[in-house]
Amino acid sequence: MEHSTMTNDDTICAISTPPGTGGIAVIRVSGPKAITICDTIWHGKRLSETPSHNARYGIIVDPVNGELDRGLATVFRAPNSFTGEDVVELSVHGSKWIQNELVQLLIKQGCRMATEGEFTRRAFSSGRIDLVEAEAIADMIASSSRASHHIAVSQMRGDLSNRLVDMREKLIELASLLELELDFSEEDVEFASRDKLLALARQTMDMMTKLTSTFSTGSALKDGVPVAIVGETNAGKSTLLNKLLHEERAIVSDIHGTTRDTIEDTIEIDGTLFRFIDTAGLRDTADPIETIGIQRAHEKIRLARIILWVIDPTSTTDPAQTAADITSCMATDAKLIAVINKCDLDAPDITPELTNLLPGESKTIRISASQNQGLDHLRTLIVDAAGFARAHPGEIMLTNLRHFEALTNATQSIARVITGLQTGLSGDFIAQDLRETLHYIGEITGSITTPQILSTIFSRFCIGK
Amino acid sequence: MEHSTMTNDDTICAISTPPGTGGIAVIRVSGPKAITICDTIWHGKRLSETPSHNARYGIIVDPVNGELDRGLATVFRAPNSFTGEDVVELSVHGSKWIQNELVQLLIKQGCRMATEGEFTRRAFSSGRIDLVEAEAIADMIASSSRASHHIAVSQMRGDLSNRLVDMREKLIELASLLELELDFSEEDVEFASRDKLLALARQTMDMMTKLTSTFSTGSALKDGVPVAIVGETNAGKSTLLNKLLHEERAIVSDIHGTTRDTIEDTIEIDGTLFRFIDTAGLRDTADPIETIGIQRAHEKIRLARIILWVIDPTSTTDPAQTAADITSCMATDAKLIAVINKCDLDAPDITPELTNLLPGESKTIRISASQNQGLDHLRTLIVDAAGFARAHPGEIMLTNLRHFEALTNATQSIARVITGLQTGLSGDFIAQDLRETLHYIGEITGSITTPQILSTIFSRFCIGK
Repeated sequence: MEHSTMTNDDTICAISTPPGTGGIAVIRVSGPKAITICDTIWHGKRLSETPSHNARYGIIVDPVNGELDRGLATVFRAPNSFTGEDVVELSVHGSKWIQNELVQLLIKQGCRMATEGEFTRRAFSSGRIDLVEAEAIADMIASSSRASHHIAVSQMRGDLSNRLVDMREKLIELASLLELELDFSEEDVEFASRDKLLALARQTMDMMTKLTSTFSTGSALKDGVPVAIVGETNAGKSTLLNKLLHEERAIVSDIHGTTRDTIEDTIEIDGTLFRFIDTAGLRDTADPIETIGIQRAHEKIRLARIILWVIDPTSTTDPAQTAADITSCMATDAKLIAVINKCDLDAPDITPELTNLLPGESKTIRISASQNQGLDHLRTLIVDAAGFARAHPGEIMLTNLRHFEALTNATQSIARVITGLQTGLSGDFIAQDLRETLHYIGEITGSITTPQILSTIFSRFCIGK
Repeated sequence: MEHSTMTNDDTICAISTPPGTGGIAVIRVSGPKAITICDTIWHGKRLSETPSHNARYGIIVDPVNGELDRGLATVFRAPNSFTGEDVVELSVHGSKWIQNELVQLLIKQGCRMATEGEFTRRAFSSGRIDLVEAEAIADMIASSSRASHHIAVSQMRGDLSNRLVDMREKLIELASLLELELDFSEEDVEFASRDKLLALARQTMDMMTKLTSTFSTGSALKDGVPVAIVGETNAGKSTLLNKLLHEERAIVSDIHGTTRDTIEDTIEIDGTLFRFIDTAGLRDTADPIETIGIQRAHEKIRLARIILWVIDPTSTTDPAQTAADITSCMATDAKLIAVINKCDLDAPDITPELTNLLPGESKTIRISASQNQGLDHLRTLIVDAAGFARAHPGEIMLTNLRHFEALTNATQSIARVITGLQTGLSGDFIAQDLRETLHYIGEITGSITTPQILSTIFSRFCIGK
């Protein structure tokens, strides 16, 4: 448990609002001396006499340099704060200079600068939230689409944690029944039939496999549904990609700012995040360099959930070869959309012959990327093809690789429990596998953890959260 | 008055914290329906039943899309809020997506997006602050040195406003005495001797000229003390500039972030902001292009408060010509520092001969910019030379060009009043000049203003303040 490995004796502070200049900024102070320290720089009604959840207007005074700013101090008293400790939130004018001076001043008065995610880590330490909920906070701050946001909200609300608690309770029931069997084994009394144990273990394993199976969709929702754009270079892939990205990007630019620098080629369409992946042209070739490019394209097709095959109808290349190429390496549950581009040019409609080449569920559409024809319809087809990537109301999803791996390990352990029960293995050995299963579940929620795991998790956070 | 030209019937909202992603973000809502509107999306203790200055924890729910976030709502009731209206500050997780969604949601529920500085403009409209204090808020947010910050703090506290109120009271006393004289002029009763009026007018004018004279220092403190770096190209000007800027920049980078992109070549040394201005080499030339460059250098020397003349002691050029060139165009109250660079090279110490060429108060220093020798000493000399740029404790300074211009106009008007009184001009004409003086003072504090002036002032603000 974290409680024993870390002490939270010191009081931490950090700028909690986004970096930069703005109307106001909030500096957060948390720890046993939060209120006392803030009172040393506060001219106004004493914060130590301020009830929890009350905001006071006052003057922040640097003992050396005089008045720093006028602003609000909101007091939150332990345990009714985000961290579970005494917290003061100082709301000041949002100049970088003031923000920095205030942090320096707080440090001079006895605070320590918070590390990444340390406020959330303290909320975890004090038992206010578990590790899944803590990680959901980071996901929520990073989320850039309605879908990923909804999953983070659900995890922060404790939906996944509650499901894991259910599993844990089933496992503990199983363990205690097995324990009983062990205690009285010499007396040959059977307290719980192995059938009952087996049923319970299978129920738990069902819950686990159902949850692990959501990871592929969950991570697609969180990181973007992978869409591979394939086709010959002259087919207009780049034009199409730019149209899809830029047009929408203009619409979402208010939300994302300059995401282009950081998350290359992802875009939210109708609430779902898509990750567009450009590929090299598909063609038989003797050139070894080009062959590597095509191998990479194949790899991307394999990982994609949606494939946009862009076709130039004026090209003389036979599409049958390319169609075979794509369908041979695409995942069985992936969706294929054949995009016949350049429909503004004088070219025959090859829809019928394409349809024959493609898997049954594929769609075919005629567009002109350069002339902005058919793009809205294409977007609708893309969103429809991502129909899998919808969280059903109330559905709980895994989005975090760490959770997925731990739950996969737990599933393997519980599978050994089931085999053990089926083959009449000694209770001692079964109990060992059961403890292992419980261990992996505990790793997810953080009831079992190490400082290393915690450091890795919280280093993803920004300072001030 | 603003009150009559603008209605504040609608409720406005905006992100008040800096743009971007952070731990938390604050969305501010102000107006008659602030609390009602927030209650429509708030699940938790009703905000309409929350006392002023109380923070509540709750869930923000989009009626269409479900839970948006969990966070704090702090209620401020009119007139005890920043704007003087009902205000709710919603503190949410700092994802750009959440911030944007929340603003959209508030607009859907009946808010209007705030324009630049509209919260501060409402504080002005409701009479909570005057125009000088409103402008000080923008200055404070933009301030990037201790000195400029201190002036903004003083102006926000109302120091300048109080001084202007003093002037206004004197002017009104003057006007009413003059009025009395006018009313009873036909009866030939002298209620106030013109000498008394004259003394009062002179007193007021003294206050005004004293205040306008602070503008040069005040604006240097606010925008940076202009330091011109002159000398031949090979003297090492660029190296010196980089050393001065980068070394200090590294220290202040925590404060300023990437100011280099926005405020070119300004830097805080020991609490004072300096604006370093590089110039072309000074030399007699026939080349017309080079001549323009030298004319510009002369112009920069004229405007500079400090001149760093960088000299290469190994150069064969006679320094006398350059010295004459600089001293002929520098301002009489500017300070000159002769910086003999490359002191690590084998070169004679030319300090004595330089000293003879320079004005009495000039300093001479030997450094090696490339070897980091003498730079700390040079910084001390620069800071000393900027000794004028210190706000004396309690001194009130003008930093705003708008205030300076209005006060200059007021000074000219009161000068006409004085002349009128001295030359025995009719009271009617004098009263006219007096009204004009009062008008200019009123323009500064905003008791007399136009929507155009207000728009210009508040457009400098960020949205959300």
